[in-house]
Parts: sequence; structure tokens; C-alpha cells
Amino acid sequence: MENNVFLIATHNMKKRDELYRILSPLGIDVKTAEQAGIEISDVDETGETFYENAFLKANSGCLESGMPCVADDSGLAVDYLVGAPGVFSARFAGEHGNDAKNNQKLLKILSDVPVEERTAKFVSVVCCVFPNGDVISARGECKGYIGFEPKGDGGFGYDPIFMVGDKSFAELSGEEKDALSHRGNALRQIAEKLKDYMSL
Amino acid sequence: MENNVFLIATHNMKKRDELYRILSPLGIDVKTAEQAGIEISDVDETGETFYENAFLKANSGCLESGMPCVADDSGLAVDYLVGAPGVFSARFAGEHGNDAKNNQKLLKILSDVPVEERTAKFVSVVCCVFPNGDVISARGECKGYIGFEPKGDGGFGYDPIFMVGDKSFAELSGEEKDALSHRGNALRQIAEKLKDYMSL
Repeated sequence: MENNVFLIATHNMKKRDELYRILSPLGIDVKTAEQAGIEISDVDETGETFYENAFLKANSGCLESGMPCVADDSGLAVDYLVGAPGVFSARFAGEHGNDAKNNQKLLKILSDVPVEERTAKFVSVVCCVFPNGDVISARGECKGYIGFEPKGDGGFGYDPIFMVGDKSFAELSGEEKDALSHRGNALRQIAEKLKDYMSL
Repeated sequence: MENNVFLIATHNMKKRDELYRILSPLGIDVKTAEQAGIEISDVDETGETFYENAFLKANSGCLESGMPCVADDSGLAVDYLVGAPGVFSARFAGEHGNDAKNNQKLLKILSDVPVEERTAKFVSVVCCVFPNGDVISARGECKGYIGFEPKGDGGFGYDPIFMVGDKSFAELSGEEKDALSHRGNALRQIAEKLKDYMSL
């Protein structure tokens, strides 16, 4: 069938690298908009859930390109904050915030919260929309806790303060992170589903 | 038509009083399960949104009773916490928490946050499900800010720390609160919709 090249709908370069790094070796041929030689619009992430936002992005990319399109929405759910910042993870410190400010705000809120109450999880929902309207999605989670200070230089977002064992996500190599991470988990699931779908 | 008596699905007595107080004068005949002489099950509020939870409760009550059933889901969305505690408002301080602990936890998190960053809104979604499967819903919001200490003896939940102007919701009379509140707003909207629906 013709559905063998997938567009990746994200403007976050580091996220795009993760999607590419995990999907490519699984035989899923993925292209960024630049690689496909097209332009796709920014999508307002107005959804109340990760699924809604992932669908909005994948659907818009599919409609604009005519290609099957895969998108991810992900975030950090802190138990002490009953799931916040969640879908607002990137905007936690406000519209003019950034990764460092988001991390600082969260560390401040948790400043005297003991380690056993600092549990959190990263969540990723990956969604693929096909030109015929079919939708395939998968959800991955990674449990950890919020550290007391940023550690490591890798990754992005909350990686420097998200701890699994005694290491932060920013201290892991790309391969170590893919093996553990919410996004790696969701992407491996969707790769399996896509292979089934494409062999139908 | 026969849809003129509505079951109210809530076990929260104070919330039930508010629903009754607002809907009754509008010509909507509402009964609690006790008043209707039936028992309805507790519903796990597993939804990710207020709408989902309100629907789950109203749908379950309707299916069990055979009566049109109205339910509310509501909570507090604090801007500094990008919408938390939201659907988890009642469980913010944990499963064994209570109103006082929830309020204390929120005041602690916001302890050195200035007044201009303490904005918040109460949200209520009211949903009515009919035995034929029809669903009518309405959403109400009330904007305010989180005070620096509990004030007043009325209301319930976050009312003592939710400020509109210089008064907390717990300092208002029932009538004053109904005129301003998220739930009053949602209930008046749904009463209008129900009147339209029932005159069809």
C-alpha cells in the first residue's frame, strides 16, 4: 500500500530526533516536513488531554500534507500536584517561560516535600492519522520522581530533574533514555500497531 | 411528556442542596435518590475532564433509576498550577484528605506567591442524561483568586480560600453564592436548556 512514508508533525527538534531515532530502525519510514519538502502549520495545543493534542497535531499534518502523519504529545504528571503540569508542561512557568524556568518553578513548589512524595511520571501519547481517516494511537508512561536539583546536560524539558533510580533523564544516553522513556514506550507500541495495520 | 421529574446524582449533601435550591424555583422538579425512594451506586470519578465525570455520574444514575438524571462535576483550577487541582480538587491532599487539608496544602504551595499570580477559577459542568440517551450539559465558571488564609464559615470545599473581591465564597449567603458561582451559572444554563428540551 501507499502508506509507507510518514510525516512527523513536530517543531521541537529534540523531540523530532527521538521520534526519528526510534521509528526508523523499526522499518517505519518517517520524514520531517523539511525532508518531505512541504510546510505544515503550527497547531494550537488546545486539548484537555495528551490524546487530544496528539490527535490535533497529527490530523492537521495529515490534512495539510495528504500523507499519514504521526505526532506526539507528552508531559510530566507530578503526583503531589495531582497530575500537573500535564498538558501544560511546556507552559508551566508561563508563555514566556523556558525549560530552566519550568524546572525552577517545580523545584520551588516541591522545596520542602520529602522524596517519598515527589513521585511523578512522564506521559507520551503518540497518534497517527491516515488520509482515509483511520487513527492509530499508543500511550507510554515512565515512572520516576522529581529530584532536588537539576542534574545532567542531555535531553530537554524536565529531564534534568526527572529521576529514575539515582540518575536524571538528562544523564542518560539517547539509547538509555529510549529504552526507558515514556516516548520510547509509546513509539515502540505504535510501531507494532503500524506494522499490523500496514500488512492488513 | 414524562421527563418532568429529575434525579440528582450526588452524595455530597451540600452540593445537593445547591442543585435543589437553584433548579427547584426554575420549575425543574428534582429529587434526591432518598426522596425518590431508590438507591444509586457510587461512581468512580475516573474521567480526565469535568464533563467526563459529570456524564459518568448522570449516565449511571439514569441507567440505574430509569429517570432523567442530573449530576455536576466541579473543581478549582489555579492558574499558578496550570489548572490543578482540577478534576482532583476533592482529592488534592490525598485519598484521606479533607477540605481543611486541601486548603492548607494549596495555601502552602502558594505561600510566597504574590496576589496577582494567585488567580483561579471555579468550574462546574452539569450534565443531564435521559432514558432515551439524550444528553444535555452546561459549563459555568467563576473567576477569583486564592486568599492568604481561610475566611468565613459557609460553603464547603475551597470556599474559605476562594476570594471574589474582598470576600471569600464562605462569607457569602447561599443566595449571594448562587448568583455568582460556577455551579449557579451552569445550573441556570442547563435549566434553560431543559425547559427548551421539555417543550419540544
